[in-house]
Amino acid sequence: MKAVALGELLMRLSPEGHKRILQADRLEMTFGGGEANVAVALACLGEEAAYVGKLPLNMAGEAAFSFLRRYGVDTRHVVRGEGRMGIYFAEHGASQRADRILYDRAGSCFALSRPEEYDWEGIFAGAAWLHVTGITPALGEGARQVALRAIAEARARGVTVSFDPNFRANLWTEDEARPVFAEMAKGTDVLIASSDGLSLFGIPPAGTDEAACRLAAEEMQKKYGIRTVALTMRRCVSASRNGWRAMLFDGAAHYSKEYDLCIVDRIGGGDAFAAGLIYALGKGMPAQDAVEFAAAAGALKHSEEGDQLLASREEILSVVRDGSGRIAR
Amino acid sequence: MKAVALGELLMRLSPEGHKRILQADRLEMTFGGGEANVAVALACLGEEAAYVGKLPLNMAGEAAFSFLRRYGVDTRHVVRGEGRMGIYFAEHGASQRADRILYDRAGSCFALSRPEEYDWEGIFAGAAWLHVTGITPALGEGARQVALRAIAEARARGVTVSFDPNFRANLWTEDEARPVFAEMAKGTDVLIASSDGLSLFGIPPAGTDEAACRLAAEEMQKKYGIRTVALTMRRCVSASRNGWRAMLFDGAAHYSKEYDLCIVDRIGGGDAFAAGLIYALGKGMPAQDAVEFAAAAGALKHSEEGDQLLASREEILSVVRDGSGRIAR
Amino acid sequence: MKAVALGELLMRLSPEGHKRILQADRLEMTFGGGEANVAVALACLGEEAAYVGKLPLNMAGEAAFSFLRRYGVDTRHVVRGEGRMGIYFAEHGASQRADRILYDRAGSCFALSRPEEYDWEGIFAGAAWLHVTGITPALGEGARQVALRAIAEARARGVTVSFDPNFRANLWTEDEARPVFAEMAKGTDVLIASSDGLSLFGIPPAGTDEAACRLAAEEMQKKYGIRTVALTMRRCVSASRNGWRAMLFDGAAHYSKEYDLCIVDRIGGGDAFAAGLIYALGKGMPAQDAVEFAAAAGALKHSEEGDQLLASREEILSVVRDGSGRIAR
Amino acid sequence: MKAVALGELLMRLSPEGHKRILQADRLEMTFGGGEANVAVALACLGEEAAYVGKLPLNMAGEAAFSFLRRYGVDTRHVVRGEGRMGIYFAEHGASQRADRILYDRAGSCFALSRPEEYDWEGIFAGAAWLHVTGITPALGEGARQVALRAIAEARARGVTVSFDPNFRANLWTEDEARPVFAEMAKGTDVLIASSDGLSLFGIPPAGTDEAACRLAAEEMQKKYGIRTVALTMRRCVSASRNGWRAMLFDGAAHYSKEYDLCIVDRIGGGDAFAAGLIYALGKGMPAQDAVEFAAAAGALKHSEEGDQLLASREEILSVVRDGSGRIAR
Amino acid sequence: MKAVALGELLMRLSPEGHKRILQADRLEMTFGGGEANVAVALACLGEEAAYVGKLPLNMAGEAAFSFLRRYGVDTRHVVRGEGRMGIYFAEHGASQRADRILYDRAGSCFALSRPEEYDWEGIFAGAAWLHVTGITPALGEGARQVALRAIAEARARGVTVSFDPNFRANLWTEDEARPVFAEMAKGTDVLIASSDGLSLFGIPPAGTDEAACRLAAEEMQKKYGIRTVALTMRRCVSASRNGWRAMLFDGAAHYSKEYDLCIVDRIGGGDAFAAGLIYALGKGMPAQDAVEFAAAAGALKHSEEGDQLLASREEILSVVRDGSGRIAR
Amino acid sequence: MKAVALGELLMRLSPEGHKRILQADRLEMTFGGGEANVAVALACLGEEAAYVGKLPLNMAGEAAFSFLRRYGVDTRHVVRGEGRMGIYFAEHGASQRADRILYDRAGSCFALSRPEEYDWEGIFAGAAWLHVTGITPALGEGARQVALRAIAEARARGVTVSFDPNFRANLWTEDEARPVFAEMAKGTDVLIASSDGLSLFGIPPAGTDEAACRLAAEEMQKKYGIRTVALTMRRCVSASRNGWRAMLFDGAAHYSKEYDLCIVDRIGGGDAFAAGLIYALGKGMPAQDAVEFAAAAGALKHSEEGDQLLASREEILSVVRDGSGRIAR
Repeated sequence: MKAVALGELLMRLSPEGHKRILQADRLEMTFGGGEANVAVALACLGEEAAYVGKLPLNMAGEAAFSFLRRYGVDTRHVVRGEGRMGIYFAEHGASQRADRILYDRAGSCFALSRPEEYDWEGIFAGAAWLHVTGITPALGEGARQVALRAIAEARARGVTVSFDPNFRANLWTEDEARPVFAEMAKGTDVLIASSDGLSLFGIPPAGTDEAACRLAAEEMQKKYGIRTVALTMRRCVSASRNGWRAMLFDGAAHYSKEYDLCIVDRIGGGDAFAAGLIYALGKGMPAQDAVEFAAAAGALKHSEEGDQLLASREEILSVVRDGSGRIAR
Repeated sequence: MKAVALGELLMRLSPEGHKRILQADRLEMTFGGGEANVAVALACLGEEAAYVGKLPLNMAGEAAFSFLRRYGVDTRHVVRGEGRMGIYFAEHGASQRADRILYDRAGSCFALSRPEEYDWEGIFAGAAWLHVTGITPALGEGARQVALRAIAEARARGVTVSFDPNFRANLWTEDEARPVFAEMAKGTDVLIASSDGLSLFGIPPAGTDEAACRLAAEEMQKKYGIRTVALTMRRCVSASRNGWRAMLFDGAAHYSKEYDLCIVDRIGGGDAFAAGLIYALGKGMPAQDAVEFAAAAGALKHSEEGDQLLASREEILSVVRDGSGRIAR
Repeated sequence: MKAVALGELLMRLSPEGHKRILQADRLEMTFGGGEANVAVALACLGEEAAYVGKLPLNMAGEAAFSFLRRYGVDTRHVVRGEGRMGIYFAEHGASQRADRILYDRAGSCFALSRPEEYDWEGIFAGAAWLHVTGITPALGEGARQVALRAIAEARARGVTVSFDPNFRANLWTEDEARPVFAEMAKGTDVLIASSDGLSLFGIPPAGTDEAACRLAAEEMQKKYGIRTVALTMRRCVSASRNGWRAMLFDGAAHYSKEYDLCIVDRIGGGDAFAAGLIYALGKGMPAQDAVEFAAAAGALKHSEEGDQLLASREEILSVVRDGSGRIAR
Repeated sequence: MKAVALGELLMRLSPEGHKRILQADRLEMTFGGGEANVAVALACLGEEAAYVGKLPLNMAGEAAFSFLRRYGVDTRHVVRGEGRMGIYFAEHGASQRADRILYDRAGSCFALSRPEEYDWEGIFAGAAWLHVTGITPALGEGARQVALRAIAEARARGVTVSFDPNFRANLWTEDEARPVFAEMAKGTDVLIASSDGLSLFGIPPAGTDEAACRLAAEEMQKKYGIRTVALTMRRCVSASRNGWRAMLFDGAAHYSKEYDLCIVDRIGGGDAFAAGLIYALGKGMPAQDAVEFAAAAGALKHSEEGDQLLASREEILSVVRDGSGRIAR
Repeated sequence: MKAVALGELLMRLSPEGHKRILQADRLEMTFGGGEANVAVALACLGEEAAYVGKLPLNMAGEAAFSFLRRYGVDTRHVVRGEGRMGIYFAEHGASQRADRILYDRAGSCFALSRPEEYDWEGIFAGAAWLHVTGITPALGEGARQVALRAIAEARARGVTVSFDPNFRANLWTEDEARPVFAEMAKGTDVLIASSDGLSLFGIPPAGTDEAACRLAAEEMQKKYGIRTVALTMRRCVSASRNGWRAMLFDGAAHYSKEYDLCIVDRIGGGDAFAAGLIYALGKGMPAQDAVEFAAAAGALKHSEEGDQLLASREEILSVVRDGSGRIAR
Repeated sequence: MKAVALGELLMRLSPEGHKRILQADRLEMTFGGGEANVAVALACLGEEAAYVGKLPLNMAGEAAFSFLRRYGVDTRHVVRGEGRMGIYFAEHGASQRADRILYDRAGSCFALSRPEEYDWEGIFAGAAWLHVTGITPALGEGARQVALRAIAEARARGVTVSFDPNFRANLWTEDEARPVFAEMAKGTDVLIASSDGLSLFGIPPAGTDEAACRLAAEEMQKKYGIRTVALTMRRCVSASRNGWRAMLFDGAAHYSKEYDLCIVDRIGGGDAFAAGLIYALGKGMPAQDAVEFAAAAGALKHSEEGDQLLASREEILSVVRDGSGRIAR
């Protein structure tokens, strides 16, 4: 199955270990972005995964581009042009200290890109899935149109659309986001969200409450005609430890087992879950298997450095079977 | 409020990660010392914080000096002169392995400094607070006189004195320390100590027992006329995990909530608590708020690399409100 | 007491932190191997410890050789010759992600070495103990003969033989291993194994069940005439957290206390246990003390980077007394 | 003497060693900018040196701010506000490979700042010198007005103005720059430039030709009434080796000796020269001594990592006396 | 133009800086091999470049595979299978100390691969060029047949064949190599060699002597019917400095200018020259331009870390125009 | 031949690359000392080499001890006891910037050691050579007596004594040193010095002047009855480039060829020369061969990181034959 993920890829700069930027004189450079993370994880799982976005024609864009290629992502439809690369700085928290993130993405060439720059025909040739998130429409008028156009193009071709409605308060207001999210939700087949992240749709945080999660999913299904709703249920103990499980709702609610996470890097945990889910549904796994696979994928990501899950199907399945970290030699 | 912290600043050399020095070929260099740690934390909180001590006129002293400046500490009253820089080596333990510390501070230029070298008038101009610890008088005759003189000068000017009576068994004996600590305690307004660290005053370890902590504080108050006693209550599970809370006693006992710490670097945890307390009391926070603020400051430090807390007021308050490490984007 | 450990020493290459090799551009190089790990730990404990094996005459072999010397291991009976160094790649897992290990040891000069290349007379001169593992006979015909010959030479001289029957499924089959392990067990005085690792002897995994562990030991004693059986009892929670204790059976069963491990690097945990046990038994500690010492040694190893325990007797004893990670200054 | 340097401070991100960004997964973070470099060097020389510019109120701005403090620069007149930090990426070339620089500074908070945001009275209180460059007016309308206003404020107070007319072709065109540079030159007391860098004033590259350099200086003096002209004369052999000397013209031409540079990091070489010159002239050194001091300062910078010269007066004088790199113990 | 490079890709492990492996505890991991280096350089130049070889199905092979993808190399015809990855260790020399290299490549899955495993039809579909070296046939019978088969398949399709006859004395003897090299030379269109590297063809080292180089080329042309001969002319001053130029002979001799190299990493210099030449000839550059382009490409490589040239056409042309390392901003 | 080297071993702390300590937050830790450097180099050459000195019983001393063992130095006669480890900080200069060194060695346990602490009988059992330097007697009364006693013990046993009279102006005055050096010279068989380093004996710097070097040697021979005088002749161009050769005088003067050094780390260059000379003379090489061997050993050291030469006899001989840095594969 060929999946397409469209969104911004950012350069990520993080101090080593648990240092603050204030203390650091060295930053680890990697790249990340909700949608690109999904593409990388799918490519590592052996799927055909295309990333679509725009990268600048300079050293930073070159490095971003090669980052995607490194993990086997199809980059043929990445637009290249003038402009700047979006950047984000991330400090790894621990214990009671939360991760801190500083976005420096305003005016990036992706944010300023327009629908006409993309080769929609080529992008969707042979594609069965499109993944988008709530970040793209928050980046500006251009990006918003790109996101909406992508959904429209996908639907016109019968391509399944998954949507992660994450809201970034530093990019736009709830009032700005609400109608856009509603429009995107209407074009969505599979909604992938945090159980606390549906407030823009008028749904209170469901936390780790099974019944509340089920209700939330039912409401999204009813209101927007969304076939499948997948919610991650995170129990925040500290920045180092979280409980983690998920629910998949397709009329019935299917809950995964819960993982007790010792967190290495939590960024991208939701994207890994999304990738796991897309993979599982794409492979036709039964709902219970699919939610277990996706939850294990998300759990695994928390043990990896960087934004992306770089695991094989076999490794994820071994976590489904036994998450106790035994070495196999 | 201008606060003055007087004591030794040491170069700290630690292997990366959890390596032992025996395995290492690279050491992370930073600087630390109980009192300087308080000054750095206060400066990061936006307070006027002066460090007072003596540093050598060589490359090591230069680096120490610039370390203080980097975090905004007022260094105008640091004495510079001939001599050596005190050094300490610290290995980060984990799990059942305790941190190991090797001091190489004998004969440092601070230890050998004398009261006449310091500009007491300038040091206390505009100052409202003095912080000292039990380490300084242990360093030798010169340093002992400097510590006692500082307290005397502070009291003569109505400057609040806080005292952390930590005892270093490798520097002097209990019998040597007892009379000195008693004298310092008599000049103390705010005593800041570990609940197990008052044995030199004839008080048994109070551990995490609320009543015992309260009793200890009452006794210190009665015996030495100390207005306020703050005790940290640490529950050692392993080198990686500790329980952590605190009590502030000002006639009544106020207890903070307890934190379950996943420890990155525990050195300086007590100093961060002291800085948080000085800040909170200086700002006139009510006792319960003050102990919560100070306990959160101390908790946060355990999640940071290096000896010092580098947090803003806002970050500490967010831990008071919710220590579950959620990312704010 | 002079102890001899015979087996393969490998170069170990690991990405920094929790990176995957796929992400890494830098690998930490160290050296390890079950038997050499025991020798290093014993040398750090102040014992005379000789490593016996074969290393190539090239830059890699030179580095391996100097690694052993660094920790005070007696290397006089290491054979040097043509051939290649065995290598293994290890990724540090965390949380639900298990460590991943890739062996590249086929055709190493140790695997191809033959009994005639070793100076058995010199090796056992003054020696009181021989430690071997189930890995050596799995490496090929040459190594198998070397292992069996070593046991024979030891027994002929009244040297105590300890045997860790770890089975590596990627090196040989259970059917191949069974008769070899049985033969080695017959020459064994002290069997050191994981409580789950006796299946080749027809004993089901005993896990952390005290009674089952005792039964397993009794059976090994009965069947092979083994004087002492020591079993590590690991409770796998995740790659970051394990429960850990041990049983020593010498007719009676002696159980150590249990440790809650926050794992830094679990490779070599069993070897550190073996070294602790050999040390304790060699020093004539009573059985309960010996199992506590060995269990603490194994626990400590999990908090160290690299394959080996680098602790002193005093440090291990302090863990036996109090594993709560308090700093002693 | 208090000197003021006004311009943009950027975050600098460079791969380690001679890696390209394309290969890197770690970047060294430091900070630099022509004018700030001058301030840092002067502060290290023991002068009162104030940096004036604008930095954002976020983690990046905080780190930049502390960078300046670390080296003793007076930061009281740095404006803090909303906006982004300018960034530049720099790859270290070597041999035939030139350094490559990628600016990501558009829309920085300094570029968008306006003259009204600065406290000109405070900035120039007690100041004797102002240093500006041709980069500031290239950053946009706001920055241009800030630069011109600074010169005007300085002149109104009798403060000496030094101007380094470096032209950045990626920021504006020659036609845009020409009138601005002419206006700035008219307010200049000391012009500090590369001997090839006066083409915007209609002067052909003078290279290392003594007579041509002298002619260039005379012309600048005549045309713009500039008292003193200092030119660096660089002979580019490769990215690793350069010839380096300088001329100071104050009616008569004074030439320094030539250095054969083995380049560690050439960025900031001209700024170190400027700082050396400002220091020397401020101290009233005779012209020949001044040009030797400044040339040695510039030479030394090429041997240091980062943008700034961090040398003492004594170290620079020792290079003037003997640049052969002998160790003094 | 699509070019195909066939040969072994090895993992390369080097200590940081100028450390010896004996001193190191960290190794930089990259990948290299004469032919793969050519493919990477061509891909960076924007050409369609396919690498053909065999890589193991394990973590090491996965990393090697992603290394190639990172730089845009076409990996569709890389065979994956059981076996081990070839490894080489390289220490960076300097001054009088030569680089030291230790190969651990025996029994690699490429060395053991056979012609039938490769999809020759697919490999050469659309290809215009094949590049091979003298290393492949030295690796063993399987690899030898693969190399010869590749040449045969190329010739059968009219694909241009370039051959770099480098001889590795540690892999086979001169007597073994001579007939194989002769056979390969007969299938060669473009011979690319060091001027000292034709002794197996009975030609004495030509060093930097123009006439001798020309004679050598004429003889190769005459004897083996090779259309074009390109020779690199290296003048070894030390491990840190070399003179470097080249000659292209196509009936007439064309000499490039000479570069004075300050060496960062000399491994792969000849491969970068080969890539530059293949690019230049493929683009139809006149002979003089081609040899200048190729020599500049080779020169540039010496300034880069790792085995490969990662330069754009524009960067190489700027070295042809001016190799003095000036920064362009 | 067993050689004994007696002197202080220090911990060496250096910033990475060319950073200043002021900029660094990481220091490379290694160990060095003139005499220990000689012992390490001899051990790497395969000789029996014993280091004699005193090291503290703490983490730092443990690491120093294991450093020596790592390279095969005989450490059986190292005294262990209370006290501190001497430390030195070293910044790597480059180009015009000299290395900067800060000693923090006062009061080290070696400096305070006394002759009675050493087992002179055991030390010299089987020894043929003793190497001492002018640093030891500068460290204090205890160390001075140790040095003189060592020479006396050596002479009493017919052990050859080599003496490197390096004078450290920061440790004592010329007037203090003169009589001590004279006494040591009288006990010297082989004097090893820099050609500029005999001024304390009343001999002017001889630089690279052949005749002056010869005269200096003749005078030392005449005045102190020294059999053999070896002088290194260094031509300081910059901190990155030096000319380097040597003279051996044994009645006749033998000059080595000159090397053009590209310096990686010049510390220990003279010690490597001394080790090469001791090795060569110990092996009975003819004078010309010996001086070539020693000069090449010294040259090679400049290309290595750390204080010690880690080369084999074969590698040094290959530099004697050809110092052009060609790779041998």
